[in-house]
Amino acid sequence: MSLAHNPIVPSVPFDEDGKHHGYLRLPYSRNDSAWGSVMIPITVIKNGHGPTALLTGGNHGDEYEGPIALQALCHELETEDVTGRVIIVPFMNHPAFLAGTRVSPLDNGNLNRLFPGRPDGTPTEKIADYFIRTLVPMADIVLDFHSGGKTLEFVPFAAAHVLDDAEHQTRCVAAMMAFNAPYSMTLREIDAVGMFDTSVEGLGKTFISTEIYGGGTASARSARIARKGTVNTLKHAGILKGEPDMAPSMAIDTTPAGCYHFAELTGMMEPLLDLGETVSEGDALMRIWLTTITGEPPLTVRSKRDGILAGRHFPGLVKLGDCLAVVASPVEA
Amino acid sequence: MSLAHNPIVPSVPFDEDGKHHGYLRLPYSRNDSAWGSVMIPITVIKNGHGPTALLTGGNHGDEYEGPIALQALCHELETEDVTGRVIIVPFMNHPAFLAGTRVSPLDNGNLNRLFPGRPDGTPTEKIADYFIRTLVPMADIVLDFHSGGKTLEFVPFAAAHVLDDAEHQTRCVAAMMAFNAPYSMTLREIDAVGMFDTSVEGLGKTFISTEIYGGGTASARSARIARKGTVNTLKHAGILKGEPDMAPSMAIDTTPAGCYHFAELTGMMEPLLDLGETVSEGDALMRIWLTTITGEPPLTVRSKRDGILAGRHFPGLVKLGDCLAVVASPVEA
Amino acid sequence: MSLAHNPIVPSVPFDEDGKHHGYLRLPYSRNDSAWGSVMIPITVIKNGHGPTALLTGGNHGDEYEGPIALQALCHELETEDVTGRVIIVPFMNHPAFLAGTRVSPLDNGNLNRLFPGRPDGTPTEKIADYFIRTLVPMADIVLDFHSGGKTLEFVPFAAAHVLDDAEHQTRCVAAMMAFNAPYSMTLREIDAVGMFDTSVEGLGKTFISTEIYGGGTASARSARIARKGTVNTLKHAGILKGEPDMAPSMAIDTTPAGCYHFAELTGMMEPLLDLGETVSEGDALMRIWLTTITGEPPLTVRSKRDGILAGRHFPGLVKLGDCLAVVASPVEA
Amino acid sequence: MSLAHNPIVPSVPFDEDGKHHGYLRLPYSRNDSAWGSVMIPITVIKNGHGPTALLTGGNHGDEYEGPIALQALCHELETEDVTGRVIIVPFMNHPAFLAGTRVSPLDNGNLNRLFPGRPDGTPTEKIADYFIRTLVPMADIVLDFHSGGKTLEFVPFAAAHVLDDAEHQTRCVAAMMAFNAPYSMTLREIDAVGMFDTSVEGLGKTFISTEIYGGGTASARSARIARKGTVNTLKHAGILKGEPDMAPSMAIDTTPAGCYHFAELTGMMEPLLDLGETVSEGDALMRIWLTTITGEPPLTVRSKRDGILAGRHFPGLVKLGDCLAVVASPVEA
Amino acid sequence: MSLAHNPIVPSVPFDEDGKHHGYLRLPYSRNDSAWGSVMIPITVIKNGHGPTALLTGGNHGDEYEGPIALQALCHELETEDVTGRVIIVPFMNHPAFLAGTRVSPLDNGNLNRLFPGRPDGTPTEKIADYFIRTLVPMADIVLDFHSGGKTLEFVPFAAAHVLDDAEHQTRCVAAMMAFNAPYSMTLREIDAVGMFDTSVEGLGKTFISTEIYGGGTASARSARIARKGTVNTLKHAGILKGEPDMAPSMAIDTTPAGCYHFAELTGMMEPLLDLGETVSEGDALMRIWLTTITGEPPLTVRSKRDGILAGRHFPGLVKLGDCLAVVASPVEA
Amino acid sequence: MSLAHNPIVPSVPFDEDGKHHGYLRLPYSRNDSAWGSVMIPITVIKNGHGPTALLTGGNHGDEYEGPIALQALCHELETEDVTGRVIIVPFMNHPAFLAGTRVSPLDNGNLNRLFPGRPDGTPTEKIADYFIRTLVPMADIVLDFHSGGKTLEFVPFAAAHVLDDAEHQTRCVAAMMAFNAPYSMTLREIDAVGMFDTSVEGLGKTFISTEIYGGGTASARSARIARKGTVNTLKHAGILKGEPDMAPSMAIDTTPAGCYHFAELTGMMEPLLDLGETVSEGDALMRIWLTTITGEPPLTVRSKRDGILAGRHFPGLVKLGDCLAVVASPVEA
Repeated sequence: MSLAHNPIVPSVPFDEDGKHHGYLRLPYSRNDSAWGSVMIPITVIKNGHGPTALLTGGNHGDEYEGPIALQALCHELETEDVTGRVIIVPFMNHPAFLAGTRVSPLDNGNLNRLFPGRPDGTPTEKIADYFIRTLVPMADIVLDFHSGGKTLEFVPFAAAHVLDDAEHQTRCVAAMMAFNAPYSMTLREIDAVGMFDTSVEGLGKTFISTEIYGGGTASARSARIARKGTVNTLKHAGILKGEPDMAPSMAIDTTPAGCYHFAELTGMMEPLLDLGETVSEGDALMRIWLTTITGEPPLTVRSKRDGILAGRHFPGLVKLGDCLAVVASPVEA
Repeated sequence: MSLAHNPIVPSVPFDEDGKHHGYLRLPYSRNDSAWGSVMIPITVIKNGHGPTALLTGGNHGDEYEGPIALQALCHELETEDVTGRVIIVPFMNHPAFLAGTRVSPLDNGNLNRLFPGRPDGTPTEKIADYFIRTLVPMADIVLDFHSGGKTLEFVPFAAAHVLDDAEHQTRCVAAMMAFNAPYSMTLREIDAVGMFDTSVEGLGKTFISTEIYGGGTASARSARIARKGTVNTLKHAGILKGEPDMAPSMAIDTTPAGCYHFAELTGMMEPLLDLGETVSEGDALMRIWLTTITGEPPLTVRSKRDGILAGRHFPGLVKLGDCLAVVASPVEA
Repeated sequence: MSLAHNPIVPSVPFDEDGKHHGYLRLPYSRNDSAWGSVMIPITVIKNGHGPTALLTGGNHGDEYEGPIALQALCHELETEDVTGRVIIVPFMNHPAFLAGTRVSPLDNGNLNRLFPGRPDGTPTEKIADYFIRTLVPMADIVLDFHSGGKTLEFVPFAAAHVLDDAEHQTRCVAAMMAFNAPYSMTLREIDAVGMFDTSVEGLGKTFISTEIYGGGTASARSARIARKGTVNTLKHAGILKGEPDMAPSMAIDTTPAGCYHFAELTGMMEPLLDLGETVSEGDALMRIWLTTITGEPPLTVRSKRDGILAGRHFPGLVKLGDCLAVVASPVEA
Repeated sequence: MSLAHNPIVPSVPFDEDGKHHGYLRLPYSRNDSAWGSVMIPITVIKNGHGPTALLTGGNHGDEYEGPIALQALCHELETEDVTGRVIIVPFMNHPAFLAGTRVSPLDNGNLNRLFPGRPDGTPTEKIADYFIRTLVPMADIVLDFHSGGKTLEFVPFAAAHVLDDAEHQTRCVAAMMAFNAPYSMTLREIDAVGMFDTSVEGLGKTFISTEIYGGGTASARSARIARKGTVNTLKHAGILKGEPDMAPSMAIDTTPAGCYHFAELTGMMEPLLDLGETVSEGDALMRIWLTTITGEPPLTVRSKRDGILAGRHFPGLVKLGDCLAVVASPVEA
Repeated sequence: MSLAHNPIVPSVPFDEDGKHHGYLRLPYSRNDSAWGSVMIPITVIKNGHGPTALLTGGNHGDEYEGPIALQALCHELETEDVTGRVIIVPFMNHPAFLAGTRVSPLDNGNLNRLFPGRPDGTPTEKIADYFIRTLVPMADIVLDFHSGGKTLEFVPFAAAHVLDDAEHQTRCVAAMMAFNAPYSMTLREIDAVGMFDTSVEGLGKTFISTEIYGGGTASARSARIARKGTVNTLKHAGILKGEPDMAPSMAIDTTPAGCYHFAELTGMMEPLLDLGETVSEGDALMRIWLTTITGEPPLTVRSKRDGILAGRHFPGLVKLGDCLAVVASPVEA
Repeated sequence: MSLAHNPIVPSVPFDEDGKHHGYLRLPYSRNDSAWGSVMIPITVIKNGHGPTALLTGGNHGDEYEGPIALQALCHELETEDVTGRVIIVPFMNHPAFLAGTRVSPLDNGNLNRLFPGRPDGTPTEKIADYFIRTLVPMADIVLDFHSGGKTLEFVPFAAAHVLDDAEHQTRCVAAMMAFNAPYSMTLREIDAVGMFDTSVEGLGKTFISTEIYGGGTASARSARIARKGTVNTLKHAGILKGEPDMAPSMAIDTTPAGCYHFAELTGMMEPLLDLGETVSEGDALMRIWLTTITGEPPLTVRSKRDGILAGRHFPGLVKLGDCLAVVASPVEA
């Protein structure tokens, strides 16, 4: 880890009882403001001794369930409700969130591929570094919200990772189960380089993440899943009182070979199956039509395995190389 | 109507029996192609004598149900299936469709606000003019597909207009009922200037249009509605054999005062109700949260009337002045 | 004037006593909001019978003295202070104002060259039309604020026009004198086509405008001139009680031949004289240095007449054809 | 320091008596010129033996006092005036200067945060490296001009740094005093990483810098300060004959806590104080008004300390996180 | 023709003997210069009584033979060489020329489709109007240079139009023959709306135009053709002394059906024939290869007629609808 | 070399007999496709045992001779024609090729300055790394096609490098001679850092490259040179049967001092000499004319040496610092 100094300055105290709203201020010199700053809103609620939860949304700037649940929590949660501490950052990559884009408009940075970050790097790398070096070390449990964003859509699930340390994995899976999304996933991340997950787990913290629909919007249904999961997680951690509100959750797995289907043609997508529907190997998932000529046959994309449609490309147009469909396997309990 | 010559040249015959695929070629001189063209794909299928249907999609470039249903029809419909003629233009505003945007990237033209067009105007105005002056006059019935696009989402409905000529209105309503979307709407357009609808109806043609979900994507469900409606409409017109496949359709109305709700704050939308759900006057429809500060209360948007949520803003971020919600009235049969 | 309907809808009453804040809502369909709107803030303060003043800022979007004085007035002025009515629009070309640019980012429209506007034109033309057709007819006196904007800077003056109708001109000059800027100008506009001034005067209204420094900023000094002038004007109109606060004002004239100096070279400006300083014909006003080579002599720009430096180019770089300097003649009382 | 070769080639001799104008040519391959170059103008004037001064402007591309003073010097200074050598680079970050922007349009590089640079880095890093590796080692004294640029404005001051080596600091302070700007500052740089200052001082050179107003323009007054300071500095260094032309200079300090004031709201700035005016702790410095609604109260920004207003935000609009005001302390002699 | 006043002001006299260089100044208010101007360089050379030639280049901004020949002429031609008057505008659409683009970056205007222009229109329309209303009426003969620009390439030819008035046509053809390009063309323009040609001929003037290679460059060979043709034309008009320098010229015709070949596929062009080569109906002109997949067969474009390859698409990539090839017919003398 | 894993996945087998078309898939997460990919087309043709040739085009995205020759080869070459293996990548920097630009639109990466690349770098660096780490090691001989691109034009030549290992150099020169372009060059690369050449040669492979005209287009003539050279090279390597088709080739050298001529003025180029013509020291190569004023003399660019014009700037406009001309020396056999 670099010895350089991270220039981010918080305007809230982390060790004082009470509820504090403020900013993580990152100086950012640019043509339209020589001495400007990136200002990432943050709320810290602390009440006596107890565990610390770090709750994050907006890791990608076009995913809304986490920001909704967390911004509501900042407003609604009161000091006296808490035992310990809750640190809430609803919009981690705030420049991306304000732009409504996955990556930062400042430096094209995909925050969740830049961890553990650099204190003297790009603005997005500085944000990553501040979380890993300053905020995560304060936490016992970290909940990071994701959805499909503007270009993907998923069945709503919470996820924990297969980890080398069994006790660590058990902690994470228990928290993920407590979140209680309609779907649950315990997975071994294949390409974990640069992810928040990997850096947080590397510090031994209990970590859970989610995917809750997508398309660059939220619905009443998806927002409710995020809000319930947040409260459940805080109850599970002992920070809020009471028991998690539990409902059935379907365990799925997206790591077997053949789950992912990529586009070999640029064109217009005609979905033949909707999220959550079951599919058998060889079934048509969608058709891709050319868009500059009529009368030509479409390319039919067929499932490479049995399962349920757990994720799909969202925009109506498809580009060569896009991920079109994720076919997940139901997991026996 | 201008006396100037519209420069669009079709590469397909309109009066020849058989199935022909080709282009409407619009010369378009520009920096990257001095003698370039806009090429709008078109299919004409003709078989003997009978009525002519003009089927159009892509009037707005980010709406996919029409293009899917029509591009499939171009491929699948055979000459012998037809009595009369079907003219299919799946991507009317082809430059906008290729860009995945509502309006044309060539001239920022919103095609459905530029009818009846101009033969010597912008590229989008020339397209409008060609439809009104050349294609629509050939047709007996015109079906124009719309969905909510990238920024809106609607319950799926077909629509016909209240018209001064009762016989004309009766024809349109009958066709709209035959389309048989899950919802149906007979409405008096309030601001009809520049719309395809108005120009087509002005020529006395039977005209129906649709809104079928949105968000800049299609689903298996929404594509099926469009495909079934297309076939039903052609059957109703006597161009395809057989009877329309009918299911219940709920009549709704969005013209009473108070249906439309506009944003008085820029921020993040938290929907509290999903499409099709019922709402009473004063109920909270959604909340708008600030995005640059935590801890502030949201603005709650309340319904100005009883009804069902028939349309809503789609993107997770809301800008001052956006249409947030359309609350429709169910109509007694 | 076009017979078309202007789609702008106000959310405030014009004829109700009291103080009302709201919007002029202009529907504006676009890629990022199919049913979006331009929302121009407006305040109406009415108290019984009396004259109506229309106060406008932000005609150009990068000029700040008017918006500051008027936004403060919206907040501070109370119903009981007023006799008659004050209609305040601090940011006429609101899209340009939000962008910090002279012209609108929506349509590149320079509002002050598009009057009397068109109800069915571009967004900027619709705004112009709404003022001329709806707001100006309600007014007895109109005060429109200008400054130099990001690319010009002027000595602070109020202006009235030489008009064909002597009584009309007398009213305007009296109001301009009451504004009491440090400089005063009575001028015959040379190229008046499209200006708000011309359209307002064409309706017989008392009209004054200003130029108060510039450079895309405001200072404490410039803001005070605008605030004092606003109050003075309302007192002069009999809407506020009391007498205008008067100080000496220097009369100047920029209409004689040779006042304007344009750049015949692209380069870097070295000013040799500051605003308000006196100059004789042939004196060096500034030098223009090349920026891609060292060692070359500069082009010296010399005054074509005696006078004071009343306006100048602001940015450090100069482009061929830019207005570099305005040398005004002091006017004998 | 990297062992790679810096590709910049000068077209002027550094060791030949006489006055030479030319370029630092940096090869820059790009879409619009596969074998193109960045060409940074440079003048070298040498006459016998004596000290070398390196004079630089345009470190930030939107600051004009240095470029004006130095471009004039390139033209006006003759070999026989000099004892020793003067190396003049009026536009260090030439691509930024030509664009009129703080940072380079080629790579978004803020030159003054990229020292000591990299010979195999981005174009801006290569420029930084060339100065540190080639030009600065030739110099005894380095004068680097800054102003506030398009987004800031400062009272005019020259600055020297508090340095670990007392003799070194004494040399720098003496040079800074000789420059004789209206204000003078001896400061400990807080965040010195990447600055030209730090790298030059690290080589043991006498170094002074300036801030002379700003706003992206120059005035006759500000240009005169820069021109006089340049000549004074060269006299102080013994390169020009004669004594510096001295006038009173006020010593100020901006390093105590509370000097800097950052925006906690996006909106429109209403300055209540102008540059150089005195202020007491708690006094209102400016107000920030909302720009999307009328009638709301402004946010008043109050001084966190006693002092004089030494710097301020320049553009009329303010963004969350912008530096609004610098309140400096007068320093007792 | 509009009654409005064209705001363009020339800085050169048209009726004074001698050689004058200056500008056509068109006021152009914009964000980066509120009182800026477009400055179109112009040279007028007059000597006593005699005919007037108007010589124009840069009608399209990416064509260089005319600008080279005319800029050289402005420098080299002396008053005493002339009998009568020569008006030279090397860069008609100066904003486009500076940008190196076919159409104007100010308003996307294709000057040669906007004649006769509008005095109160866009900047490009104002330029068109000024030529038709002010410059062309002064002329007896007009020579307008064109080349293929960045996206087309032609064999070098001069052209005159088939006109209704036989005497008028004879004059034009004689001038075109005197220009003496390697190829010559007498054609009936098919889509003449908006062209300079049509407006100039409508005023009864002798008019010739050219196409001389293209690709956005000039060669020594192409520049020589333009320079010789200019001098020949002025000799033919009696303005320069001496006889035109004549060489063989091949007459060709591009108006028969089948001359133009448009792309029905987007991809990469493989030319099979070069400019000036002969071709028979059915011969392969080029192949279009897909660019997102290997192994697929190309689309072969075959000539629709016998002739010579007189024009072709220039860039290596081809877009659907681009003009690929012009196959001209040799014309019997 | 980094130990990180390169994420590129090929969809074709390298060790299986037969002809396979597919993609190198590089995952590329971005705003418009969260799980998108760059898809670089590749063809592998293998038949038994024998040498491997790696043939590459599109290293720069605006050069077409290589892509044409190689895309044709992918289609036309059959397994049975081959002894050994041919790996063909017609469009190495596929994003740049699709955009028609020298460097990648994804990251502004100039592929041929980024070798040996980085597996965890930018997309362009990942592509470079995959070639050096995976494809080049499979090859015995590598042929990399270049042309001048949109901004340069060269006489057609093949090139080999002067290498430290005589046997290695002999192999490369022999292959280059077998390619048999009209011109041949054996050169010591001066600034070889980052080039494909250097990395390939560093692995001991036989390497040849080319320059074959340019300007962002191809001609029938230039495409034939590339196609013949490709076949000749494969014959030379023993992969295709038969002898190379040989014609005279002129040896030239561009490494002596004075070959390169750079622009010291921005303006319009008037070429006085065409490619391949001979020139003596002091001869005028071209003239540069100003473009914002008429009547000024041009800057004449004179040759610094005797030789032939082997390369030149292509676009009609010239910018300060552009390479204008390359004057090569003929080499005695």
